[in-house]
Amino acid sequence: MSGSSIGKIFTVSTWGESHGKGLGAVVDGCPAGIPLCEDDIQVYLNRRKPGQSDYTTPRKEGDVVEILSGVFEGKTTGTPISLIVKNENQKSKDYSEIASYYRPGHADFTFDAKYGFRDYRGGGRSSGRETIGRVAAGAIAAKILKEKGINILTYTKSIGNIEIDKNKFNKEEIFKNPFYMPDKEAAKAAGEYLDEQRANGDSVGGVIECVVSGVPAGVGDPVFDKLDANLAKAIFSIGAVKGFEVGDGFDVAKARGSENNDEFILGDDGKITTATNHCGGILGGISNGNDIVFRAAIKPTPSISKTQKTVNKDGEEIEISIGGRHDPVIVPRAVVVVEAMAALTVLDGLLSGGIDF
Amino acid sequence: MSGSSIGKIFTVSTWGESHGKGLGAVVDGCPAGIPLCEDDIQVYLNRRKPGQSDYTTPRKEGDVVEILSGVFEGKTTGTPISLIVKNENQKSKDYSEIASYYRPGHADFTFDAKYGFRDYRGGGRSSGRETIGRVAAGAIAAKILKEKGINILTYTKSIGNIEIDKNKFNKEEIFKNPFYMPDKEAAKAAGEYLDEQRANGDSVGGVIECVVSGVPAGVGDPVFDKLDANLAKAIFSIGAVKGFEVGDGFDVAKARGSENNDEFILGDDGKITTATNHCGGILGGISNGNDIVFRAAIKPTPSISKTQKTVNKDGEEIEISIGGRHDPVIVPRAVVVVEAMAALTVLDGLLSGGIDF
Amino acid sequence: MSGSSIGKIFTVSTWGESHGKGLGAVVDGCPAGIPLCEDDIQVYLNRRKPGQSDYTTPRKEGDVVEILSGVFEGKTTGTPISLIVKNENQKSKDYSEIASYYRPGHADFTFDAKYGFRDYRGGGRSSGRETIGRVAAGAIAAKILKEKGINILTYTKSIGNIEIDKNKFNKEEIFKNPFYMPDKEAAKAAGEYLDEQRANGDSVGGVIECVVSGVPAGVGDPVFDKLDANLAKAIFSIGAVKGFEVGDGFDVAKARGSENNDEFILGDDGKITTATNHCGGILGGISNGNDIVFRAAIKPTPSISKTQKTVNKDGEEIEISIGGRHDPVIVPRAVVVVEAMAALTVLDGLLSGGIDF
Amino acid sequence: MSGSSIGKIFTVSTWGESHGKGLGAVVDGCPAGIPLCEDDIQVYLNRRKPGQSDYTTPRKEGDVVEILSGVFEGKTTGTPISLIVKNENQKSKDYSEIASYYRPGHADFTFDAKYGFRDYRGGGRSSGRETIGRVAAGAIAAKILKEKGINILTYTKSIGNIEIDKNKFNKEEIFKNPFYMPDKEAAKAAGEYLDEQRANGDSVGGVIECVVSGVPAGVGDPVFDKLDANLAKAIFSIGAVKGFEVGDGFDVAKARGSENNDEFILGDDGKITTATNHCGGILGGISNGNDIVFRAAIKPTPSISKTQKTVNKDGEEIEISIGGRHDPVIVPRAVVVVEAMAALTVLDGLLSGGIDF
Repeated sequence: MSGSSIGKIFTVSTWGESHGKGLGAVVDGCPAGIPLCEDDIQVYLNRRKPGQSDYTTPRKEGDVVEILSGVFEGKTTGTPISLIVKNENQKSKDYSEIASYYRPGHADFTFDAKYGFRDYRGGGRSSGRETIGRVAAGAIAAKILKEKGINILTYTKSIGNIEIDKNKFNKEEIFKNPFYMPDKEAAKAAGEYLDEQRANGDSVGGVIECVVSGVPAGVGDPVFDKLDANLAKAIFSIGAVKGFEVGDGFDVAKARGSENNDEFILGDDGKITTATNHCGGILGGISNGNDIVFRAAIKPTPSISKTQKTVNKDGEEIEISIGGRHDPVIVPRAVVVVEAMAALTVLDGLLSGGIDF
Repeated sequence: MSGSSIGKIFTVSTWGESHGKGLGAVVDGCPAGIPLCEDDIQVYLNRRKPGQSDYTTPRKEGDVVEILSGVFEGKTTGTPISLIVKNENQKSKDYSEIASYYRPGHADFTFDAKYGFRDYRGGGRSSGRETIGRVAAGAIAAKILKEKGINILTYTKSIGNIEIDKNKFNKEEIFKNPFYMPDKEAAKAAGEYLDEQRANGDSVGGVIECVVSGVPAGVGDPVFDKLDANLAKAIFSIGAVKGFEVGDGFDVAKARGSENNDEFILGDDGKITTATNHCGGILGGISNGNDIVFRAAIKPTPSISKTQKTVNKDGEEIEISIGGRHDPVIVPRAVVVVEAMAALTVLDGLLSGGIDF
Repeated sequence: MSGSSIGKIFTVSTWGESHGKGLGAVVDGCPAGIPLCEDDIQVYLNRRKPGQSDYTTPRKEGDVVEILSGVFEGKTTGTPISLIVKNENQKSKDYSEIASYYRPGHADFTFDAKYGFRDYRGGGRSSGRETIGRVAAGAIAAKILKEKGINILTYTKSIGNIEIDKNKFNKEEIFKNPFYMPDKEAAKAAGEYLDEQRANGDSVGGVIECVVSGVPAGVGDPVFDKLDANLAKAIFSIGAVKGFEVGDGFDVAKARGSENNDEFILGDDGKITTATNHCGGILGGISNGNDIVFRAAIKPTPSISKTQKTVNKDGEEIEISIGGRHDPVIVPRAVVVVEAMAALTVLDGLLSGGIDF
Repeated sequence: MSGSSIGKIFTVSTWGESHGKGLGAVVDGCPAGIPLCEDDIQVYLNRRKPGQSDYTTPRKEGDVVEILSGVFEGKTTGTPISLIVKNENQKSKDYSEIASYYRPGHADFTFDAKYGFRDYRGGGRSSGRETIGRVAAGAIAAKILKEKGINILTYTKSIGNIEIDKNKFNKEEIFKNPFYMPDKEAAKAAGEYLDEQRANGDSVGGVIECVVSGVPAGVGDPVFDKLDANLAKAIFSIGAVKGFEVGDGFDVAKARGSENNDEFILGDDGKITTATNHCGGILGGISNGNDIVFRAAIKPTPSISKTQKTVNKDGEEIEISIGGRHDPVIVPRAVVVVEAMAALTVLDGLLSGGIDF
C-alpha cells in the first residue's frame, strides 16, 4: 500500500479523488526563499484543465489552486507547501451504472482486486484528475529550475498516425494549437483525424516528447538512482503511459556502436561536449550537460462510446457503451503532466547532491 | 549521491567495482525460513558470466558467489543476506591509456563531472560487472517467487535487425543458443550478423522481452509506486537500457481505444480475466492477474575497436581505437540481469502489502 | 531540508503553520475498508485543543477536522487520507515585535540560521499547532489498533516536583482533571503548584508516561528500525521533549543484571511471558508481548512573562517579557500528542511485516 | 522486516552475525575525494574490540577491517564503501544448550516470535558484534566531520552508582583507563565496584555522555527529522540503550522556564550565542551552534553467571547459569558505538542540506 510520494529531497505527495472534496499535493523539501504565488502554479494547471478546446471533456472545473502553507510574505519558507484544488463538479452524476461493471482499460478491476472495493465516481483515485497535484507541484519545480537556467520544452510528437515533421518544427506553434504540436500542419491533420475517430465513438493515443535544456553535467547517481531510471519511474507513473525512451530510445536496438556512440569534441567555448546526442543527455545514469531528451507513449483514452464487452458485479458478461463526452485523446492534456514530472525529477536530482546547485 | 539501493521491503544494495577486490549485494527484508544455498544463486550468475560463448568477452572470471550472512542451517533468517563475488582478474592490465581520455558511450566523462575523478579500471563502478550484485539478489527473489507459482521467462527478442519470429517461438530453444533467443533460425542469423559486425570492429544492440506469469491481481500501488513505474525504474537502472515498454508499448500510440482496451470476460475457471493482454498485465499501476509483459531496448556495446574521435585529459581532440576483445553485443548477458530486476521488483511489490502473500 | 514525513508503510506527512490558512496531515498506506469518520478524529483533537481548562492558552480555536480524501461511503479506500484543520484565529495580532528578536527556548534563531528568515507569526511551523496533524493521523492509527485489541493509555506522571503516587494510580481519574493525571491528589497539588508559578510569570515541565497493551510479540526490527528506536524518534520529534526512556529507563544504569533481567516464566495460559517488565515490553528492538512502557520528559513552556535577556535583529542585547497568556505547562496538552505518536509507530511496526496482522 | 539501514544521504547498512563468516557495513552516499584507508577505521574498531582490558570478554578477535570497494588511489570515489570484518573465532563452541532455552534480557525469545527460529550462536544478529559495522562506518563519518572542525568527545559518565565528578573532569584521562571515564578517581572506584559485582556473578549498567562540538547552526529539520529525534533513534538502536536525553534531559521536567531557557547573548566574536546550554545545542530540532550534548542509559550485561529462571524449548521452567566470562559491564565498549552513531547522524544531517557544507 501507500506509494503516493515521490522524490528524495524535493518530495511530492499527492492526494484526492476525481469526485471527492478536492485534490492536492504536499511539497516537502522545497528550498527556502523562492518567490512563489498561486499564479505561478495556476498557469500550469490551466494547461491541463478540461474544457480548453473542442477536443477535451467539457466537464466544467475551474481547477483553481490555493496555497495553504509553506509560503510567507511571498516566499517559500523551506517547510511543506500544501496545495489544494477543490472539486466543484463532484455531485452531478449518477454513478450506479458505472459502479456495477468493470470498464475495459480502466483500473476498476484492479482496484477491487487490491482493496476489496473502490470509489467508483469518475475513477476515484485512478482518475486523470490525480495529476492535478503533480502539475501543481511540478510548476514549483519548474520555476526553480528556470531561475537556474534550466528550461523544459514538452510537446506532442504524434497523435495516432499523425506525426510532426522534424523539418517543420516550430517551437512557437506549440501553444497555438489544441494539441501542443510544434508543427502547424500536423496539428491540422491531427484535428481531422480526431474528428473522424470521435465520430466512430473511438479514441487514439500518441507520443509526447520532452527536452530539458541547461542541466549541468553530473546530475543523477550511477546505480539504481540513475537520472534516466528516475525519469522512467516518474513518467511511467502517469496513468496512460505504456512506453518510455531516452535519446534514440528503441532505435538503438538496431544501431551499431559506431553510430550510437556520441563522440566527444571541444565545443566553441573550449569545453568538452558531444558531437551528437544519441544518448539523450545521460551517460551511465548521469547528465552529461547536453539536452535531456525523452519520449512517452500514451495509450488511447479507455472511455469510448463504441460498444465493448465486459463483466458486471454479478459475474455476467455484458455489453456496454460509455456515455458522456470524453477526451478522444489524452495526449494534449498529458503534455503538461509529463513536463511536471520531468521538472520534479530533475530538480530532485539536482538537490540530491554531488554538484553545486 | 548515494542511490545504490532499491526496493521498499525487499531491499537490495549493491557495491563494488570492475577491478576492485570484489562486488556484492546486501539483501535486507528477505522473509525468514526460505531454504537458500549458494547454488541457488550461482546458476543465475553463470548466465551472465563472461566467456560463456564465442560472443562474449573472454575475460576469465569464475564469478563464484559466497553467502556471508543471513542464512543459518540452510534457511534465511530474516536478517540481511550479504553476498560477495571476489574479482580474480583485477590486476592484469595497464589502464594508463584509458585513464587519459573519455571513451564515447561510456560514463567516464559524467563520473569525472560528478565526482572530480574516477576509478578508470574497466569502468570502475559503471562497469557491467556491477550487475553481479543485482543478479545474485535477483536469484533469491526469483526462488521465492517460484515457490509462490510465479515464473519469469526472459529472452532476446532481437539483435540488430534480426528479430525472432513469433510463429517460431520455442521456449526450449532459449537456453540452447548463445543469444537466449527462443527461435533457432533467428539465433543462427544473429550469429552471422554479429560475426560481420565484429569483423568491422563494430557492435550492435537489441531488445529483451520478459514475461512474468502467475502474479496475482492486486500487486502495485495506484500513484507513484505503480508496478509498471517501479519496473520502469528497475529496468532503466541497467546501464545500457535506453527504452522500456509494457504490453503493446509504443504501439499504443497508433492504436485506437477499441483496439487497445482489453475486454473483460469470464475465464474457463469462472473468474474474471481479459480476452486480450494489450496492457501487459497491469492496469492503473496494479497487476490484473494476466502475464506481465515488458521489453527493454539495449544499446550497442560502446567499446568498439573501430576508430572514434574523443577528447583527452589535456583537452586535445584525439582518435582512439579501443583494443582488446569486447562483447560485440551486450544483449545476451543482459537477459538474466533484466530477469533479476523483474524478480526483485515483483517480489517487493508482493511484500509491500495490500494482498495476501 | 524536508523531513515532514514519518513511517514506512503507514506514512504521515504534516503541513501547516500556526497562523497560516490551516494545518493538516496526509496519511498514506492506511489499510482499506476501515470505518472512519471525522468524529473518530475530532475526539482526539479535542484533547489537545486550547482553552479546555484554566491552565491552557485561551486562544479560541475550534480545531475542527475535515476529511478531504481517502474515505468513501464511510470506509477508508487504501488511498491517501487528507486531513485539514483550518485556522480561525490567524489574523488577530501584531507580530512586529516578536519578529524583531529571538525568543529564548524557541526555534526563532535556528529557523533563521537554517532558512534565512522565518514565519514569525506564533512560531510558524515550529508552533505546537503543528501537532494537530500528528494527533489527527494518530487518531486513525489508534482506531485501527483498538480493533486489533491494542490499547494505549497515556497520562501525566509528573508536573514540576509533583509526581503521581503509584499506589493511588486510578485510570478513571485521568480524564477527570485538567492535567490528565491518574491520581486525584497529585492533580490537585499540581494545580496549586501551577498557580504559584504562573503568578511568578514562570512555567514548568513534567513527565508523560505511556503504556501500550496488547501488542503481540514480534513487532519491530532487530537493528536500526528497533521498535524502541522508532518510538524514540517519534516521541523526540515532539517539540518540547528532552528525554525518552523505555521500561526502567535511566534507572537501569544503576541496576544489576540480576535485577534488571526479566525472567521468563509460563503464564496462566501456558504461554511464555516474563515475571517482571523492566525492559518495557521490548527486547532486542522487538516487542515481547508484554506492555510497552515509555516516558517522555517535557520542558517548561518557553514563553514566559518573566523578564529575559535576548538579542534583537539589530544585534543589540535587550530585555523582553513575553506578553499574553500562555500555557504555564505544556504537559497536559502533549499527552494526546505522545499517544498519537505511539499509535502511529506501533501501527507502522505492525504493518511493516514479519507477523500476521 | 528489513530495517538494517540508517541515514538519508549518508546511508549505512550493516550485516552479519556473531558467529557467521563475518560482519560488515556498506556506506552509500559518502562524498568523493576524501582520503581514506583501513587504519582510519581500525583505530575506532580497536576501541570496541574484546580483550582490551580485564573487564571485557576475553574472546579473541582481531576485528581487522578490510575496505572492499569505494576507495581508489587512497580516496573515496563517491560510490558505496563496502567494509568487512571476518570472524575468526566462530566455530569454537557448542551452542546446543543455549539453543534450548531463552536467556533473560536477550533477544532469543523475540527473534523466535518474529522469525520462527534464530541463529543461536552468540546471539546471531542481535549480538553486540553487530555494532562492528556501525563503528566502521562511524569512523568514516567522524573523519569527514573532523576535517570540517566538528569533534566528538564520548565518555563514560557513570558505572552503577559510581559517577564522575564534574569538577574533576579531565579529557586526557578518558583514554587512560579501561572505562573511558574522564575522572581518574571515579575510574578507580568503578574498577573496584565491578570486581565486586563480577565476584557475585552479576553485571552493571551505566551512562554514556557525548559532546559534539563545532556543528554549525542550522543542522536538522523542524518536524519529524529533528536532529535530536534522529539522534534519539540512532542511539536507541544500540542494543542495550534504555534511555536517551539531550541537554538537561529529564531534569527539565522539574525546571522552571526561567531556569531552562537559554538566553541569547552576543559572544566575544560579536555573533549571537546562548549564555547557557540547557537545551544541549538543539532548538526546535535544529542545531544552534552550541555543543550538542546527550546521554544514553545502558543496561547491565544480560549474560550473568548468577542463577536465573527461564523457560526452555520444551516449555519447561528451568534454572540456568550462563557460563563463560562475559563483560561485567558493556558501557566502556559501547562508548565508541555511541560516538559512531553520533557521527553518522550529524554528518547525515549536514549532508541533507539547507546549509553549506
